[in-house]
Amino acid sequence: MDHEKLFFASDYMEGAHPEILRRLMETNLEKTPGYGTDAYSEAARARIRAACRAPEAEIHFLVGGTQANATVIDAMLRPWQGVVAARTGHISVHEAGAIEFGGHKVLTLEPEDGKLTAARVRRCFAAWRDDANRDHMVMPALVYISQPTECGTLYSLGELEAISDVCRAAGIGLYLDGARLAYALACPQNDATLPDIARLCDAFYIGGTKCGALFGEAVVFPRPGVAPHFFTVVKQHGALLAKGRVAGIQFDALFTDDLYGAIGRTAIEAADRIRAALHQMGYALAFDSPTNQIFIILDKERAAALSRKIEMSFWEYTDDGRVIMRIATSWATTREDVDALIEALKD
Amino acid sequence: MDHEKLFFASDYMEGAHPEILRRLMETNLEKTPGYGTDAYSEAARARIRAACRAPEAEIHFLVGGTQANATVIDAMLRPWQGVVAARTGHISVHEAGAIEFGGHKVLTLEPEDGKLTAARVRRCFAAWRDDANRDHMVMPALVYISQPTECGTLYSLGELEAISDVCRAAGIGLYLDGARLAYALACPQNDATLPDIARLCDAFYIGGTKCGALFGEAVVFPRPGVAPHFFTVVKQHGALLAKGRVAGIQFDALFTDDLYGAIGRTAIEAADRIRAALHQMGYALAFDSPTNQIFIILDKERAAALSRKIEMSFWEYTDDGRVIMRIATSWATTREDVDALIEALKD
Amino acid sequence: MDHEKLFFASDYMEGAHPEILRRLMETNLEKTPGYGTDAYSEAARARIRAACRAPEAEIHFLVGGTQANATVIDAMLRPWQGVVAARTGHISVHEAGAIEFGGHKVLTLEPEDGKLTAARVRRCFAAWRDDANRDHMVMPALVYISQPTECGTLYSLGELEAISDVCRAAGIGLYLDGARLAYALACPQNDATLPDIARLCDAFYIGGTKCGALFGEAVVFPRPGVAPHFFTVVKQHGALLAKGRVAGIQFDALFTDDLYGAIGRTAIEAADRIRAALHQMGYALAFDSPTNQIFIILDKERAAALSRKIEMSFWEYTDDGRVIMRIATSWATTREDVDALIEALKD
Amino acid sequence: MDHEKLFFASDYMEGAHPEILRRLMETNLEKTPGYGTDAYSEAARARIRAACRAPEAEIHFLVGGTQANATVIDAMLRPWQGVVAARTGHISVHEAGAIEFGGHKVLTLEPEDGKLTAARVRRCFAAWRDDANRDHMVMPALVYISQPTECGTLYSLGELEAISDVCRAAGIGLYLDGARLAYALACPQNDATLPDIARLCDAFYIGGTKCGALFGEAVVFPRPGVAPHFFTVVKQHGALLAKGRVAGIQFDALFTDDLYGAIGRTAIEAADRIRAALHQMGYALAFDSPTNQIFIILDKERAAALSRKIEMSFWEYTDDGRVIMRIATSWATTREDVDALIEALKD
Repeated sequence: MDHEKLFFASDYMEGAHPEILRRLMETNLEKTPGYGTDAYSEAARARIRAACRAPEAEIHFLVGGTQANATVIDAMLRPWQGVVAARTGHISVHEAGAIEFGGHKVLTLEPEDGKLTAARVRRCFAAWRDDANRDHMVMPALVYISQPTECGTLYSLGELEAISDVCRAAGIGLYLDGARLAYALACPQNDATLPDIARLCDAFYIGGTKCGALFGEAVVFPRPGVAPHFFTVVKQHGALLAKGRVAGIQFDALFTDDLYGAIGRTAIEAADRIRAALHQMGYALAFDSPTNQIFIILDKERAAALSRKIEMSFWEYTDDGRVIMRIATSWATTREDVDALIEALKD
Repeated sequence: MDHEKLFFASDYMEGAHPEILRRLMETNLEKTPGYGTDAYSEAARARIRAACRAPEAEIHFLVGGTQANATVIDAMLRPWQGVVAARTGHISVHEAGAIEFGGHKVLTLEPEDGKLTAARVRRCFAAWRDDANRDHMVMPALVYISQPTECGTLYSLGELEAISDVCRAAGIGLYLDGARLAYALACPQNDATLPDIARLCDAFYIGGTKCGALFGEAVVFPRPGVAPHFFTVVKQHGALLAKGRVAGIQFDALFTDDLYGAIGRTAIEAADRIRAALHQMGYALAFDSPTNQIFIILDKERAAALSRKIEMSFWEYTDDGRVIMRIATSWATTREDVDALIEALKD
Repeated sequence: MDHEKLFFASDYMEGAHPEILRRLMETNLEKTPGYGTDAYSEAARARIRAACRAPEAEIHFLVGGTQANATVIDAMLRPWQGVVAARTGHISVHEAGAIEFGGHKVLTLEPEDGKLTAARVRRCFAAWRDDANRDHMVMPALVYISQPTECGTLYSLGELEAISDVCRAAGIGLYLDGARLAYALACPQNDATLPDIARLCDAFYIGGTKCGALFGEAVVFPRPGVAPHFFTVVKQHGALLAKGRVAGIQFDALFTDDLYGAIGRTAIEAADRIRAALHQMGYALAFDSPTNQIFIILDKERAAALSRKIEMSFWEYTDDGRVIMRIATSWATTREDVDALIEALKD
Repeated sequence: MDHEKLFFASDYMEGAHPEILRRLMETNLEKTPGYGTDAYSEAARARIRAACRAPEAEIHFLVGGTQANATVIDAMLRPWQGVVAARTGHISVHEAGAIEFGGHKVLTLEPEDGKLTAARVRRCFAAWRDDANRDHMVMPALVYISQPTECGTLYSLGELEAISDVCRAAGIGLYLDGARLAYALACPQNDATLPDIARLCDAFYIGGTKCGALFGEAVVFPRPGVAPHFFTVVKQHGALLAKGRVAGIQFDALFTDDLYGAIGRTAIEAADRIRAALHQMGYALAFDSPTNQIFIILDKERAAALSRKIEMSFWEYTDDGRVIMRIATSWATTREDVDALIEALKD
């Protein structure tokens, strides 16, 4: 990479939070059994159960987000069933058909601010239930949401409760993709805690890869029995780590002394400073995101000029030919990085 | 784990070789692009191409062995095709149906010493080709072998050449699972080098997880074009690492200053000492393995007694009711570990 | 069924056109080889090749429409590829996830009058091609259209040519679902002939089940080589008829003395009379369909009242709470049936 | 076909039993609803329930045997489960990987006389249950048998009861493929009746295609609830007939006035006459089949000579280079056909 540049392209540009590496170092030569049966993985599970106030939760450590989504969704659906998601959801667009590879249709709904709404989910269930041809159609049987969403927006506790209510009334599962959950939990605007998520969802994952780990996602089934033989399904999906402890140790570290919270707060504080500066400078933002991702609308010339100084992610073109670029902060974003970015954005 | 015990259950009981962790530490705060496009992954690819004398090789870093097998096999087969493997092969038995999950049948052949033979592979191809009902049958279209095999045995260069010849004459691909390849390459008995494997196979993977890495397998297509759009197939299988560099840095370390060779040799020297002692003490071995896995046949009482002191892996029961236990050495096995093991086996 | 009622619910309420049954009767005791290798199937293929002016066409007789769609699409796509279809297309909605069961995503576009447009297809291809993340996305690699569409509307020759041009420029296949093709071909408004379809598409099927056969769809690949080993893929999909001649004889009959044309014309003449009467009586129609399906918008009371006398199909609710009911004619619809229907609609 | 020849290649060389065609003719112009909801399909279900003494049975009419197997097995298994079958079973060899296409492994056991044995099935279950690595392996969860088997042999009632007992003790389903069930039921040696099969199995199908129908297999779940949403799974597999009555009418005919029994008896009487003559003439048979298939072992010259006069099926080569040819009788085999065959075999 060009070392003159400012790097805000994503939240997974570095290795791991130093505390995580330290823990991997200090345990490195210990001998443990494989496949997540080691004491570190067990300790991590205990810490996550406590953080979620879900003492019965079944917890598995997988490697990445697409893998977690494909494995959980496949495990929770029967062959005739599909998963409901926002048209812009990660599983709808950016997982290369991993859900369909497992044999299941993604039933897409139009989002509002990147989010599903309880009303639209209810209508989707009713439309299937009331259709004379429903036996020729894929049954909606699981709802997929992300917190934060692809656009960086957040479900409020009330919104989550409403969707959960609709799902439970219909006997349908709710699954939350928490690839960037640390950044949701750290937002001042957020009112949905980990125990809320555990209470309202049937499955979710706590993201590690984009929240300071080398890799790893903690799949949580708050109430056991939701996904029988999940270990074997994980193996079948090629998602079982032989050295399971490498994920376990990382999550043990993330959930010790609230490291996961600290990682989120660092990123949110940086993002908030950037947002304030952008607002002051009159930049237009594509989404009202309070999390660690900021989506700036730029005309093409401006985008090109800024891109020479700042590494951002291309997001998409607007209908009027402008371009949306994403800036992301992380646990590794320093005060100096933010100062330099704000300076660069002034030109 | 019980710290009084001797640990020989597997070759993936520790974290990573210290040199690998050192490299992860020293690069940790650098910023790189994701998904294996970083300079470390590129450097690792260059080193592996050189080691394989395959300057055009296409190389992808995946996380685990089952994942590598399922992804490569799925990418190399068309829907009407299956993969030929030994009845005892890892994909036949111990991957929870991952190949079938991708829609493909594993066509099993009876092994000799855990190995396929060129003659049996040829007969398998001919049987399909000559069958009047072949259009109702799964076409054998890829051959899967492991080096070393599940039983620790090795294909000689001549055996590999013979199988490769049969495959090429039939226009059928050859894929080699190298989960423990370091231990094959380090055997004095081995005469099939990495360049040989690259010359004779259409795809193979160089195992990291069981050969000193935290995780990771380097999938090599020695000649490009064998698996189009493989990056997307990897993503679809949930096998794409966001922080691809974490695998790249490990393989860069493994192929610097012949670390991969040194790891293999440490394990083989330990295993050879154990084998010599076992021979002297009159133990019966199940397979004539020259690699880092040793399979001891014990009566049940003896197995139980030894298991109180030595952590071994249960392998299987023999037809006459005895038990086969596996001892594995690794890069982390010390001279003192071996001394203690030999002492314990004397009782 | 209630024998007082008028039956216009679908075009597959009877057995087969009597001429088809006659041919099955007269050949019944002849002995032929199985799986479509018999002389009747060969004769049917020759007649279809002639009707399509596609002398090299590869032709397979399958049993039903969903089966034909799933088998052809699976055979034409590679694992990382998906099929583009209208949001209202049969494969998008009414095939119970059969395409996803085969591992492929249906990429949906918003239709106009039930049809894809060349412009939207071009934008879809360009959006994928220009997306920085396209390797994380399903590649559009086949376009699915129906003639007539689910709404009974028709692609004009110009529209088909435009879509075909877009596909060929992008190197992407075009597949046409002709479940009711007889009714398209028989429309006075239609200007896309069978040779046009064979020239413009890479695969299509000529519908039998809904056009007078007991069952059966003739899958046509106008230019060979598009779907290698298709026979085996058919078998793998459970779509291979042991007594293949039962389909072959039916298509031989359908393409003898233009029976397929006559079947279509009977239905269209009946539908045109009904449309004229509906127009005169001031009924509102949901789609501007010139084919054998007519979609009437009714308020709920009127729909209930008419349904006591006329067996129609429920289609869907309109946004303002009215109901769309479908009337379908077929080869079996008589002049008297139409007279009685028009009378009943007057009340 | 060469009309000088004698045709004994298979039991599906003709159309349908004339009584079936007669019923299709006489009902042809009646209007019925689709997808198997018509009165004829209901009547057929009632007759089959009575014949099976299974008043609660859930019955679906599918088109062919591979389709029935793939759909039922997929519906009865969860993703981590596989189906146990004889190595020579139809699903193991001759269905082009249809079971694996649905994501499931076929776990093969070595047969005796083409049959699974209760002892081997029990050992297979125990091997999985007792394996320390069973969570890395496909769980045996359904047993597939055929009556008669691929080799024409029959399970005795005692053998079926023993296998059923083993399955029930393990909580594992039993599925019977009855592609040629008429020929089993009609054998004097047979002591396993339809009610026995319904009592002992969790699912089975009564073959139509090879027992006198144009096509069609009646899938029977003797006790409901075994395969939830089976209608939708059938649709998803492309196995749902729009004109479901065409199958329903055929099975209604087959189970009226014991036509299914008469069809079987005609074939068995013919086969028994042929067997007696073969025995007298000293021919060697490959299997001790009492059903409508006879497997003659011939040296190659003799096979070639006979094949000029008699259309037989090639089965396989023996280890000593001879050839096994199959002769099959059916409902359509006449006394004269048998006389001529016996004469031809004398030369």
